[in-house]
Amino acid sequence: MSYFENVPQVKYEGKNSKNPFAFKFYNPDEVILGKKMKDHLRFAMAYWHTLNADGTDPFGSGTLDRTYGKPDTMERAYAKADAAFDLMTKLGIEYFCFHDVDVCPQGNSLEEFKKNLSDITDYFKKKMDETGIKLLWGTANVFGNPRYMSGAGTSPNVDSFVCAAAQIKNAIDATIKLGGLGYVFWGGREGYDTLLNTDMDFELKNLARLLTMARNYARSQGFKGVFYIEPKPKEPTKHQYDFDAATAIGFLRANGLADDFRMNIENNHATLAMHTFQHELRTSAINGMFGSVDANQGDDMLGWDTDMFPSNVYDCTLAMYEVIKAGGFTTGGLNFDSKVRRQSYTPEDIAYAHILDMDSFALGLRAAAALIEDGRIDKFIEERYSSWKSEIGEAILADKCTLDQLEAAAGERWDTKVPSGREEYLQEIINSVLFSL
Amino acid sequence: MSYFENVPQVKYEGKNSKNPFAFKFYNPDEVILGKKMKDHLRFAMAYWHTLNADGTDPFGSGTLDRTYGKPDTMERAYAKADAAFDLMTKLGIEYFCFHDVDVCPQGNSLEEFKKNLSDITDYFKKKMDETGIKLLWGTANVFGNPRYMSGAGTSPNVDSFVCAAAQIKNAIDATIKLGGLGYVFWGGREGYDTLLNTDMDFELKNLARLLTMARNYARSQGFKGVFYIEPKPKEPTKHQYDFDAATAIGFLRANGLADDFRMNIENNHATLAMHTFQHELRTSAINGMFGSVDANQGDDMLGWDTDMFPSNVYDCTLAMYEVIKAGGFTTGGLNFDSKVRRQSYTPEDIAYAHILDMDSFALGLRAAAALIEDGRIDKFIEERYSSWKSEIGEAILADKCTLDQLEAAAGERWDTKVPSGREEYLQEIINSVLFSL
Amino acid sequence: MSYFENVPQVKYEGKNSKNPFAFKFYNPDEVILGKKMKDHLRFAMAYWHTLNADGTDPFGSGTLDRTYGKPDTMERAYAKADAAFDLMTKLGIEYFCFHDVDVCPQGNSLEEFKKNLSDITDYFKKKMDETGIKLLWGTANVFGNPRYMSGAGTSPNVDSFVCAAAQIKNAIDATIKLGGLGYVFWGGREGYDTLLNTDMDFELKNLARLLTMARNYARSQGFKGVFYIEPKPKEPTKHQYDFDAATAIGFLRANGLADDFRMNIENNHATLAMHTFQHELRTSAINGMFGSVDANQGDDMLGWDTDMFPSNVYDCTLAMYEVIKAGGFTTGGLNFDSKVRRQSYTPEDIAYAHILDMDSFALGLRAAAALIEDGRIDKFIEERYSSWKSEIGEAILADKCTLDQLEAAAGERWDTKVPSGREEYLQEIINSVLFSL
Amino acid sequence: MSYFENVPQVKYEGKNSKNPFAFKFYNPDEVILGKKMKDHLRFAMAYWHTLNADGTDPFGSGTLDRTYGKPDTMERAYAKADAAFDLMTKLGIEYFCFHDVDVCPQGNSLEEFKKNLSDITDYFKKKMDETGIKLLWGTANVFGNPRYMSGAGTSPNVDSFVCAAAQIKNAIDATIKLGGLGYVFWGGREGYDTLLNTDMDFELKNLARLLTMARNYARSQGFKGVFYIEPKPKEPTKHQYDFDAATAIGFLRANGLADDFRMNIENNHATLAMHTFQHELRTSAINGMFGSVDANQGDDMLGWDTDMFPSNVYDCTLAMYEVIKAGGFTTGGLNFDSKVRRQSYTPEDIAYAHILDMDSFALGLRAAAALIEDGRIDKFIEERYSSWKSEIGEAILADKCTLDQLEAAAGERWDTKVPSGREEYLQEIINSVLFSL
Repeated sequence: MSYFENVPQVKYEGKNSKNPFAFKFYNPDEVILGKKMKDHLRFAMAYWHTLNADGTDPFGSGTLDRTYGKPDTMERAYAKADAAFDLMTKLGIEYFCFHDVDVCPQGNSLEEFKKNLSDITDYFKKKMDETGIKLLWGTANVFGNPRYMSGAGTSPNVDSFVCAAAQIKNAIDATIKLGGLGYVFWGGREGYDTLLNTDMDFELKNLARLLTMARNYARSQGFKGVFYIEPKPKEPTKHQYDFDAATAIGFLRANGLADDFRMNIENNHATLAMHTFQHELRTSAINGMFGSVDANQGDDMLGWDTDMFPSNVYDCTLAMYEVIKAGGFTTGGLNFDSKVRRQSYTPEDIAYAHILDMDSFALGLRAAAALIEDGRIDKFIEERYSSWKSEIGEAILADKCTLDQLEAAAGERWDTKVPSGREEYLQEIINSVLFSL
Repeated sequence: MSYFENVPQVKYEGKNSKNPFAFKFYNPDEVILGKKMKDHLRFAMAYWHTLNADGTDPFGSGTLDRTYGKPDTMERAYAKADAAFDLMTKLGIEYFCFHDVDVCPQGNSLEEFKKNLSDITDYFKKKMDETGIKLLWGTANVFGNPRYMSGAGTSPNVDSFVCAAAQIKNAIDATIKLGGLGYVFWGGREGYDTLLNTDMDFELKNLARLLTMARNYARSQGFKGVFYIEPKPKEPTKHQYDFDAATAIGFLRANGLADDFRMNIENNHATLAMHTFQHELRTSAINGMFGSVDANQGDDMLGWDTDMFPSNVYDCTLAMYEVIKAGGFTTGGLNFDSKVRRQSYTPEDIAYAHILDMDSFALGLRAAAALIEDGRIDKFIEERYSSWKSEIGEAILADKCTLDQLEAAAGERWDTKVPSGREEYLQEIINSVLFSL
Repeated sequence: MSYFENVPQVKYEGKNSKNPFAFKFYNPDEVILGKKMKDHLRFAMAYWHTLNADGTDPFGSGTLDRTYGKPDTMERAYAKADAAFDLMTKLGIEYFCFHDVDVCPQGNSLEEFKKNLSDITDYFKKKMDETGIKLLWGTANVFGNPRYMSGAGTSPNVDSFVCAAAQIKNAIDATIKLGGLGYVFWGGREGYDTLLNTDMDFELKNLARLLTMARNYARSQGFKGVFYIEPKPKEPTKHQYDFDAATAIGFLRANGLADDFRMNIENNHATLAMHTFQHELRTSAINGMFGSVDANQGDDMLGWDTDMFPSNVYDCTLAMYEVIKAGGFTTGGLNFDSKVRRQSYTPEDIAYAHILDMDSFALGLRAAAALIEDGRIDKFIEERYSSWKSEIGEAILADKCTLDQLEAAAGERWDTKVPSGREEYLQEIINSVLFSL
Repeated sequence: MSYFENVPQVKYEGKNSKNPFAFKFYNPDEVILGKKMKDHLRFAMAYWHTLNADGTDPFGSGTLDRTYGKPDTMERAYAKADAAFDLMTKLGIEYFCFHDVDVCPQGNSLEEFKKNLSDITDYFKKKMDETGIKLLWGTANVFGNPRYMSGAGTSPNVDSFVCAAAQIKNAIDATIKLGGLGYVFWGGREGYDTLLNTDMDFELKNLARLLTMARNYARSQGFKGVFYIEPKPKEPTKHQYDFDAATAIGFLRANGLADDFRMNIENNHATLAMHTFQHELRTSAINGMFGSVDANQGDDMLGWDTDMFPSNVYDCTLAMYEVIKAGGFTTGGLNFDSKVRRQSYTPEDIAYAHILDMDSFALGLRAAAALIEDGRIDKFIEERYSSWKSEIGEAILADKCTLDQLEAAAGERWDTKVPSGREEYLQEIINSVLFSL
């Protein structure tokens, strides 16, 4: 009996279908802007939330059975892997992502953990060969164990740093072994709870050291993929060092890491930092740092990482608009780093949730493509900036002007009229296109 | 030359129209759930933002010309009224709302102000007769003048209270004269900036006094309409006494005002109070306090009243869902208490903005009706609560149980399984319906 | 070997002491405003956070050893009780509070749980007699178990309601047995995650039913104490029905419960609702609903319940100012519903944290008393409202005025000058007094 | 008759004084840590809020008379300057800051404005010579005029850029003329309201161009002072490009401006970005970017720039702690970019507000010095990081380790125990020191 036995193969049935186990908008092989939907979207399943998270929250115990009918040994690890590949196959998800500790027991020593990780990745490899499913990225969980309570790369305790290094090395090895396209660093507990006990300068330098070592090691082992930073502003620490894309990019550049790293932007982390999802994607793109996406959505009324499955098609549309404008995913993809709600505790809910998110992003892709084909927004922007094509505009853009020269030109421009920003007109275009798909 | 001379009569052209001066979704006479769209929606124009707000913000001066080519006397008041009725006619908006000070100069004395108000409402009456446009509600601005810097009904200064009473009396008179369906109290500066200088108990009791006097006066003059409280949590004061619907309803009940008052719920005020628009509508409805709506939308990333024209169709859908479930508008309607963005400074932008909001709510209405006709959500809820139709459930609902009796029944229920909340499944229904309109 | 063996008896040593195990400001028997400090403050230890919380958070496992060297049976329950009374004795804390599930294992059935609860409360009784420590209030945890995933009193599942009723009955019995002064209802999961699956009206009515049954039962058993609602706006649910004091008071009044219930105000919950601690206390007091306090402090930069030990003396001062103005605690007290930070994992940190909070509130009490004795703030307020002692003011306050009459009086008051609010001057008084203690 | 005629010379009278026009804590010539208080604090008056802001807010007109009894011509400009220097002299404030448009009328053309600016700065020069008051920094307001509605350096309209360049040139000239120690760029409207109409990449590059031109021009004119960026996350635009210190520093470095620019950190802007004031100062310092401070305080319950006079001594203490640790102010200082509350409308309130802020920072300085002299916090941090002085720690810090080597060392460290973070203990030290001054 399989965990997802009540979940059938999920197929595209079109928007009028009322079959809860069908896609209404995601039609994987349909071609949009010259590329198949599935190749635009590159969906990935997040092993941890999807297979491990049991609904425990700070106010109550787990509601979702995630034992897979097995004791907490490698037996469960294999059963869980079976469930994972079964789910991906049924949904047509072609990528997955994992932390080291998600996939096997940690055992009582580093040695045991290495052994377990080796065994389960052998099993993954076999499953991947059978199904064609690929690894979008790997990562190490260096925040959950009490040894990382004060951070890993930024711990005041050198031993924490050393242990994190060991875990990262093995997670990189596993990623390479499975042909992973990328390797992610999410901040975990790299941050502080109070500056009263923190040497922030020291900690940030050590964080750069750890990333540098990891990069050097991976490259020495032949890893050709991309490293990602996944920014987040708060939680679990009061201040996470990778606050947002601008902060992380500044940090990477200051530490000589910008060539190897890109951003893994999460919608929920963006909004916790009081940025839109679109803003974080744009910031990444214009800095040459666009990489991958964690698609989970937050609740703007709530101040923590709710990690909901994406359902807001406005967000999905503007995100896909940025993705397409940035040239589309190359090594990256759309990872569903999302949790079913604690009350949605049946295995079927996991399928419903993925159908929701895949359909939402399918709609987003359709709408983004339609907006680009429509062309009114692009044209509006071009016209709005057209005054820069004047003589003085081009001189400024060519860095040929001084303040004196501009002062001489200012008098006659003193009563200039800026063109209307037309925000409401543009919003109407969005709605017109979105609701005419 | 009219202010809106570049705005043509706006008509429904359907969703594929690219005419910026056409409705794509709002088809006023189309029948939905047995009623014309325009009668479901009862759109109203807000005189103040639409005709008066000039784009001044705390960081810069006005960008929108709101002089109507006239000096700041009654001449301008008449020109502005012409523009107002021209705009409503071109857009097919059948209601409007105003504050006393929006429509005419305040002059240098109460007497001058009364005269001006009397003259302009005579003019309104004529315009209303000509066009068939009606007054949704009137109100008095008892917060802008420095005499109200510390509140009106809640001022520590008795003179402020007296002046507010005079303004409110005249605004009620004007409302009655124009056949207004309602009269609104928005909190203005009824609140505090610091408890260090505030006798909150005294102030709240005075607020109740003022509302009571106003109710009594209006009824004595034959006013049959509804009074509304419009909750807002913050801004301009640090704490506004009418924080949210629950607070305002509690206040009205405690002061014997619940029979005459209803809620005027604003989306932007809801979200500033960390509630959804839907929540505030539901709270009003289940307390028998559903009344009217200010439809403007906020930006969840920003902490002030942005008063944007509504564009988010999810919000509009869930709002119209509540409106329909509450029985629809009777005396109330959808007032666009919204400002064009400061950069959208042309008269055409005002038309674009109203087309945006009317289309957004038209979509919301279509979607809400479709969800109700679809029936899956209603059915899901019915099933979710079906265990209450058991013997013990009915006994509890009939108030026939004691804790002892329930304890006796608990043992066998100790391992009860609650049905899944299915939030993701329900979200997929929303998207399916919304994107199949 | 005791859990707190490294914690000595903590004594008052005055503000220049550098002994980390000494009070610098809390001098329990010192008389302030005619009453001993300890009788003003009535400190209580929260059994759950102090003895049970192990530092688990959504991103990692526990860091604090809370096994008390025993297996998870009644053996641990007794060892934990020993630690609890040892800590309270060493700190001079005279009250405690508990949930049913904090103090003993839940077992596998209601019967087992009842037995365990009976045994441990026998043990408590003995300990209380020995030490003189009293029970401030009891409560039931009807939110942690999966059966309450969708609420207890507001569950869509009748069985959850029945089980909650059973737990509450037994928790009331335990409270009565131990002479508890109060019984608290914190909202737990009484709220909703999405209105899409929720009948809010039905749920609120059931909540009132449960509270009514509980009140009736307790009174029938001779309970003379106070019932408390502890408002919280969010978390764990998206919307908690007891959002804030105003909401909870409105609910109690609408359901005939206002005579038996008071508010238990928590600082962290106040700020999550975007209110100050002082505001929630004032709101309770002016509605005759002032009761008890949970003193834990939040972090305004973070959007969740951080439950920190109070350290901000401004907050403590303004809170104690309200407590004193409200007549002081009668049945209530100051409960430290606070968690040591996850990185503060030693038993000594628990003592440090309580010394911090007790000293912070001692400072708050000293400052509040000094402000009242200073008198400048009271005098300022009196003068600020003095215009209400005029003829017209008194007529209004006596409800003898109509809008017409006030209009007649308004003309000559049209240019009234409101007295300055002097917020900065008042802040300087606060600082002057606070830093001259 | 002078504007501040009711404000006497303000002197230090010690903490027991009840004279509202006396300092209770600020004793300018008292030596702390080897330096006079006034030289630690370097207070500056902000010309705009203090002399110009009239209390207008989005909901009402001005409450403060800021006409200085003169028509709005150069006459008023001179009268205002007299008031400014009178106030600074009475308070003992030795620095001031101004925008170009604060100090004189803008006239109807650039030429008129230049003439006015030249005249008023002549007058300033004379006043400065007479009083010894100095210019902390100058700046240009390139956000208030409608020509800057879409930004200045980041405008889609080239004319706006040209006009801004002219204003900045003249403001730099004025700064040099008056011996200003710095020149500030606050973001104004450099940001966006919606990405739908924005070429963010283009705009950011233009912003760098403008800063570069300004730097080059000023240096060519012999300016030796420091340029400052003043970060702010939101308001007036939805997204301000200089979101926070990390973002601004990254931008400056990426554009070759890091040698000439430093941060001007504002407390209220820090908290709007969800950072503490201390965090922004620390971030600046560890990046070699510590510069100057705008000391105004926000209200964490409100989502806009409240610009309150600082009163929270915790904030002042931690800020001064960072200032001292960063080596103290060199070219920078503490500018009171604060507004009296709209209800605090008398000239005396301006004096009360400055007494509040100067006393609050005096307390902060005293407390910071006491914490440093106490030494417990420094010592705690040193010990917390002491494991890094081990062999492996030093190897890592010397960049001599690889992941392989660390993996080899990890096994025996797998069960490492991180030292307690002791946050509560450290908070108790803060309170002990603060309330023993």
